[in-house]
Amino acid sequence: MPHLNETHDPQLTSWVASANDGRTDFPIQNLPFAIFRRQGSSEVWRGGVAIGDQIVDMAAAVQAGMFTGDALAPAQAAAESSLNHLMGLGPQRLSSLRKALSKALQTGASQETALKACLVPQAEAEYHLPARIGDYTDFYTSVYHATNIGKQFRPDNPLLPNYKWVPIGYHGRSSSIGVSGQAFKRPKGQVKPPNAEVPALQPSARMDIELEMGVLVGQANALGDAVPITEAESHIFGLVLLNDWSARDIQPWEYQPLGPFLAKNFASTISPWVVTMEALAPFRAPFSHPEGDPQPLPYLSSAANSAEGGLDIQLQALIETPAMRAAKVPPAAFTRTNYRHAYWTAAQMLTHHTVNGCNLQPGDLLGTGTLSGPTLDSACALIELTTGGQNPVQLPGGETRTWLQDGDTVILRGWCEKPGAVRIGFGECVGTVLPAAA
Amino acid sequence: MPHLNETHDPQLTSWVASANDGRTDFPIQNLPFAIFRRQGSSEVWRGGVAIGDQIVDMAAAVQAGMFTGDALAPAQAAAESSLNHLMGLGPQRLSSLRKALSKALQTGASQETALKACLVPQAEAEYHLPARIGDYTDFYTSVYHATNIGKQFRPDNPLLPNYKWVPIGYHGRSSSIGVSGQAFKRPKGQVKPPNAEVPALQPSARMDIELEMGVLVGQANALGDAVPITEAESHIFGLVLLNDWSARDIQPWEYQPLGPFLAKNFASTISPWVVTMEALAPFRAPFSHPEGDPQPLPYLSSAANSAEGGLDIQLQALIETPAMRAAKVPPAAFTRTNYRHAYWTAAQMLTHHTVNGCNLQPGDLLGTGTLSGPTLDSACALIELTTGGQNPVQLPGGETRTWLQDGDTVILRGWCEKPGAVRIGFGECVGTVLPAAA
Repeated sequence: MPHLNETHDPQLTSWVASANDGRTDFPIQNLPFAIFRRQGSSEVWRGGVAIGDQIVDMAAAVQAGMFTGDALAPAQAAAESSLNHLMGLGPQRLSSLRKALSKALQTGASQETALKACLVPQAEAEYHLPARIGDYTDFYTSVYHATNIGKQFRPDNPLLPNYKWVPIGYHGRSSSIGVSGQAFKRPKGQVKPPNAEVPALQPSARMDIELEMGVLVGQANALGDAVPITEAESHIFGLVLLNDWSARDIQPWEYQPLGPFLAKNFASTISPWVVTMEALAPFRAPFSHPEGDPQPLPYLSSAANSAEGGLDIQLQALIETPAMRAAKVPPAAFTRTNYRHAYWTAAQMLTHHTVNGCNLQPGDLLGTGTLSGPTLDSACALIELTTGGQNPVQLPGGETRTWLQDGDTVILRGWCEKPGAVRIGFGECVGTVLPAAA
Repeated sequence: MPHLNETHDPQLTSWVASANDGRTDFPIQNLPFAIFRRQGSSEVWRGGVAIGDQIVDMAAAVQAGMFTGDALAPAQAAAESSLNHLMGLGPQRLSSLRKALSKALQTGASQETALKACLVPQAEAEYHLPARIGDYTDFYTSVYHATNIGKQFRPDNPLLPNYKWVPIGYHGRSSSIGVSGQAFKRPKGQVKPPNAEVPALQPSARMDIELEMGVLVGQANALGDAVPITEAESHIFGLVLLNDWSARDIQPWEYQPLGPFLAKNFASTISPWVVTMEALAPFRAPFSHPEGDPQPLPYLSSAANSAEGGLDIQLQALIETPAMRAAKVPPAAFTRTNYRHAYWTAAQMLTHHTVNGCNLQPGDLLGTGTLSGPTLDSACALIELTTGGQNPVQLPGGETRTWLQDGDTVILRGWCEKPGAVRIGFGECVGTVLPAAA
């Protein structure tokens, strides 16, 4: 488990003034990583670290000789065109780099002048996926989501008997994962309403989101070597926001017996900034199953996982419709939740994934599944919020939505805050539904 | 659809004598591609083409100036350390390369002396995966397998109503795919027998195989662009043998509602030699659904798919137990089938996969699913052959198997033969079950 070190000191401020306003997602205590370049340029993609409204260009900073000693190798890895190498170095080297970055960005740091020359404003940047995602696995860790969805897909049998024993997961599609800003065509697929004789190929009329966190794997485990729960977090690099777009009319017809497929794999969107597990250390939370539920099997249990396996991350999904955009109405939140509601922790997901010897690699993505909370207004998909399309969500300006319409943009936000710690955030994960292909 | 050209001429022979014996998998009409190097060496991995019992070292052949004109670019791609680039070039350039290889390897070819210096005996080679497999999707195209399995997992509801409309598929795990020769530890997982109160973590006691073909994707489609059925085969590079190892006691407890996960992703094995769609052209077969079954929806139908969407590939699974190995008893076939029995063609799998805009990339792997035929002795998994472990398979020397034991090696073989054409084959796909981790 990560512990607090000098990078978490709430008294720290940065010579980058925008990092100190108490509202930014990116104070000096956060230091998340992304892959970026200047918008519209043909510059090479390289790693960057967010500080306030700026980005530390890691390629430029390494070039300028800003890193030495233990921080040099991870800094060089963070300057590459993807973060896979950095992720694979493991938490100690990452920690060395965070300490060096924290020192160099602190108010009064001797590196201020040199490092200032390595800053790029976030407003001028565009982002790439932070890593080559070899494999993407999506879990199902909200018991509220599993129950809400189960009621609609299997009214007589909403929560299956394995749910409270197995961190249920399935493989997703890597090739169609995009970074925030992704716009994708509404998918077509076979749809068969219950009263239809035969299915038909048509554009999905039930476009939905799933508000999730994405866990990016750090150091690898070899094929055949399970990762014990006590070591699981040392294999996690950090977290992003994840929107697992879903076509709810394609899903019920195709998903049995092998699981969701074309209802999901047309697009998945993640936020560009990877917030490291170390940065999240102040926001750990106790974790337990509700009283009366079975205790996890021993391979999924540890004292540390119980003491601080949870993560107190506040999450929000907002929508901006074409009408709102035209009227300059700001995006409206339509649901709010917290990652603490998950039934299985990130460590449990990772350990379960490897218990059979499956090898995880740096940059692999583990989705948490839709993070619906215990109440209807904390449900994290329209299928839940609208009870299967029956009760439209009210939007500013009198609009309503049961499902997403063409041109709708969905924005995910996430952040951590609590007394005695400096607020940190994830930035945004933005995606837009385009009309189906002709 | 591919058509016959001069590379298929059954009269062709090669100056590599072992290619002409009528029994080899690799006559001059085949020319499959692999990634290889000399066994136990630290040579770079590079592409090779099988001819008889030899390999044309493509890196050496390119270096020796054996390729010019239209064949040069694909030959250079075939010399790389993975075939992804070659796969992405599309069927026309591949065809140019095949024509050049066919000419250079023909009896009497002027290139004989120069190319002979580029041969490496297969007996001295080791193989790598032929491509970086970005995404692996496994289909379920044998209606016999779906029905046999369905009877055991859902006795009241064996074949689900979507089966005859949707080419059912789901995402698999890329990282644990290995090349023939793979040996893997018996997986552990949560198992809950129907009469047990709670599940337990234990080594799988029901290790099984699935005999499949693997379709390797050629040229890419962009995200959002569906591939029409009439163009699907131009996006297929070639086929391999695929063993989708399965843990039948982990599967029933974990697979609902999102599909198989840890029961499958500990290992999947493919054969090293990729037999191109062009090489398979003489072995095309008519394709149709049984009378009385629904016709495929229009997006899954084409005249060419009906006329020759099928592939007449004979398939066999053999076992070699430790006792057989000790007694020098040759591996024994325990099932035989044919790819013609599939309910959906390779083109239908590919088109269905992209109908929602999902992007496929060169080197992606599409498994056909277990290719069980219509009779029990053509079932392609032990779960079917033994009716769920009830009726052991008899092996030479008096041994029996319901499920695989530690040290068992399974060998898949595949080949095509018919009057008027030269037999071509796929080589072998070999894998061994090791004891579970301590």
